[in-house]
Amino acid sequence: MIVDLHLADLHPALGDPALNSMNFLNEVAQDYPDAVSLAAGRPYEEFFEFSALHRYLDLFRQHLVDDLGQDPGQVHRTLFQYGRTKGIVHHLIARNLAVDEGMTVDPETIVVTVGCQEAMFLVLRALRTDPRDVLLAATPTYVGLTGAARLLDFPVRPVATTDSGVDLADLRGQVHRARAEGLRPRACYLMPDFANPSGTSISLSDRQALLDLATEEELLLIEDNPYGLFPVTEGRRLPTLKALDTDRRVVYLGSFAKTVLPGARVGYVVADQPVTDADGGRSHLADQLAKVKSMVSVNTSPVAQAVVGGVLLAHDCSLVTATVRQRTVYTSNLRHLVHGLARRFSAGSSVRWTVPAGGFFVVVTVPFPVDDALLHRSAREYGVLWTPMAHFYGDGTPVHALRLSVSAVTPDDIDRGLDRLAALVAGEVARQETGARVR
Amino acid sequence: MIVDLHLADLHPALGDPALNSMNFLNEVAQDYPDAVSLAAGRPYEEFFEFSALHRYLDLFRQHLVDDLGQDPGQVHRTLFQYGRTKGIVHHLIARNLAVDEGMTVDPETIVVTVGCQEAMFLVLRALRTDPRDVLLAATPTYVGLTGAARLLDFPVRPVATTDSGVDLADLRGQVHRARAEGLRPRACYLMPDFANPSGTSISLSDRQALLDLATEEELLLIEDNPYGLFPVTEGRRLPTLKALDTDRRVVYLGSFAKTVLPGARVGYVVADQPVTDADGGRSHLADQLAKVKSMVSVNTSPVAQAVVGGVLLAHDCSLVTATVRQRTVYTSNLRHLVHGLARRFSAGSSVRWTVPAGGFFVVVTVPFPVDDALLHRSAREYGVLWTPMAHFYGDGTPVHALRLSVSAVTPDDIDRGLDRLAALVAGEVARQETGARVR
Repeated sequence: MIVDLHLADLHPALGDPALNSMNFLNEVAQDYPDAVSLAAGRPYEEFFEFSALHRYLDLFRQHLVDDLGQDPGQVHRTLFQYGRTKGIVHHLIARNLAVDEGMTVDPETIVVTVGCQEAMFLVLRALRTDPRDVLLAATPTYVGLTGAARLLDFPVRPVATTDSGVDLADLRGQVHRARAEGLRPRACYLMPDFANPSGTSISLSDRQALLDLATEEELLLIEDNPYGLFPVTEGRRLPTLKALDTDRRVVYLGSFAKTVLPGARVGYVVADQPVTDADGGRSHLADQLAKVKSMVSVNTSPVAQAVVGGVLLAHDCSLVTATVRQRTVYTSNLRHLVHGLARRFSAGSSVRWTVPAGGFFVVVTVPFPVDDALLHRSAREYGVLWTPMAHFYGDGTPVHALRLSVSAVTPDDIDRGLDRLAALVAGEVARQETGARVR
Repeated sequence: MIVDLHLADLHPALGDPALNSMNFLNEVAQDYPDAVSLAAGRPYEEFFEFSALHRYLDLFRQHLVDDLGQDPGQVHRTLFQYGRTKGIVHHLIARNLAVDEGMTVDPETIVVTVGCQEAMFLVLRALRTDPRDVLLAATPTYVGLTGAARLLDFPVRPVATTDSGVDLADLRGQVHRARAEGLRPRACYLMPDFANPSGTSISLSDRQALLDLATEEELLLIEDNPYGLFPVTEGRRLPTLKALDTDRRVVYLGSFAKTVLPGARVGYVVADQPVTDADGGRSHLADQLAKVKSMVSVNTSPVAQAVVGGVLLAHDCSLVTATVRQRTVYTSNLRHLVHGLARRFSAGSSVRWTVPAGGFFVVVTVPFPVDDALLHRSAREYGVLWTPMAHFYGDGTPVHALRLSVSAVTPDDIDRGLDRLAALVAGEVARQETGARVR
């Protein structure tokens, strides 16, 4: 008699929209291969080269020999065997953070992870200890955060955001409210630079205020920074929260998916918070995250780490230098998209959009609710894909907005995509008006 | 004011021996670099070649072009971008299972994971839905299973083992006992071939009986098979549980760490169990595991998968063929170790040991309790490392046994290690006798 499992017998997160969101979006993209995709948030791929893979692997191997003094046996062991749980490119990541972000980070407080997603998962697993624990998140939120939290039975409470990032009064209010309910807000997750999906950034003064609030309220901040290196105006980058963090309130998540390549699946977490055990023993939060990691993935593939290490070595550990060409593409695409929206939607059209200072994403507000059914119709009838903003709220509330991405397209794609989007909007507005007359 | 976290504020598993076991063993190894290690379970590394890495990557790329008909853009996307959550070497794994194990597996029911550890973690996460859920495990158990279960608040109940594997009467008793307590035994974890740490294998008749029991008791079996390709006598391999599984009772975990290289961090799970959702929609358990994976690690590095794919392609998908040299090393080391034990411990010595039919591990039973303090003394005073069997029980009970491993040593290492072990045993027996006289 063949096994017959029911979804209800498996972890409840498996029925949750957050875990089905990415699958759904991928399936729509597969079902309409000829549609122009302004949905995909993956990086620009035209600069990837297969031969570079060999070069980077060789560079990292040479680094093990020349800079770290490893003999051939040690090189073998480093690249091919089980290895250090916290990773083998931590020293290069620390150098990168110094060079590009002006951050001084002890390499021992870094855990190299299987992409930033695993970093997020490890942090949430370590922090969620009890049914009273809740996580706060600047909302709209990256769906990977919500999904990871669901898998760990870690309720996420939304914190309102503004055009300049997070609403500090609402954050404080949420902390107080949770505590009044007997709950423990463990941390607040945010993406201070060119956030996914909102595209907004937190101002310098608000960053400082956020850190003060975190200290006053004894709250950890989880800073996720995948897009920070892609400002529209060169040199216009703000210090990360972690760079301003004198009290170790910030757990910093880093990704090489957008700056090096997603296929390495290498990210990291900086967790320099001191942890004291019952016997008075001291460690860093990073050491505790490494223990979690040892039971999730043992360690991050050293072969994959070597690719990332090679890219860092090839550019004196500066990813700003390594990504000059990519930044040019993203910047010009972002400008092209914003101009294209302005050309197609008149001031009186009640269509609005954000003008981000960098990153991949623009949010377009439209005068009708945007749901998955509309995305299907957009793909089928108009040939254009985008992401319904409802996916980033996680509570099923209809949202009159959609996210456009500029990272994996050409200016021509943007033009065709926007023409089709304009036709969809016109069609929907007409349907609404017809509907209103009929009703 | 700098953050001050306490270990008690973090997930309780972080204080558990299971999560500290690997760290502890690694630290002892680091503290005594000159000791002979009969502890390390890592594979033999002398056959690893850096240049082979390039060759395997090239082979897999060529496969994408020649066999899968991908154009250069698609090849780029497959290797470098975010990709299919269930992986890109699933078809080669299915072929490998057909060639080496006589198993017919639908590639769509395979999820490629970040090592077998992630496969284990995904399965446990999907199955553990409720505080009433318990996991059964043939004990002594691989510590990575216990650690993953702890992180997911999934209690593990031990099932007794015998010289021919699992004690079927005890398994049935445990299932009944758990149900009588209002608990739900979700699955039983076991390593039917040359288990870590016991070295024992389940007989063919017991495999069949185990599958019948699983059907009668409506229990899933989680079969972990990292060592199956390394029998002492060539050709003497038993069919896997999964190969005998007509009712889809078996979730099969596979590893390339011992057969290809640990540094790829590539493993997989075969989960062909049908799952029905509330709307009557059908999927495989593999699809649900992929949803979990999308929130843990997004996907397994395609670069790392390409290395494993290249090795499979280079050997017509047979890992039996690919590992001929390794098997020779393991087999001759295992024989050398067993003969060495017989030479050093007479029949009257009350030292006993297992004689496994394959794999990496021999368990030695001694007439005194074996704990971490003894391991430290063994390293310091005698210069030999091994693993206390107590680490594989997870309940702190003292065990009069230790595990020796033959995978990462030479015959000379074995001779020196056994001489030192014999001296330790003689010393401990003398201490005991002195202690007995004094008392």
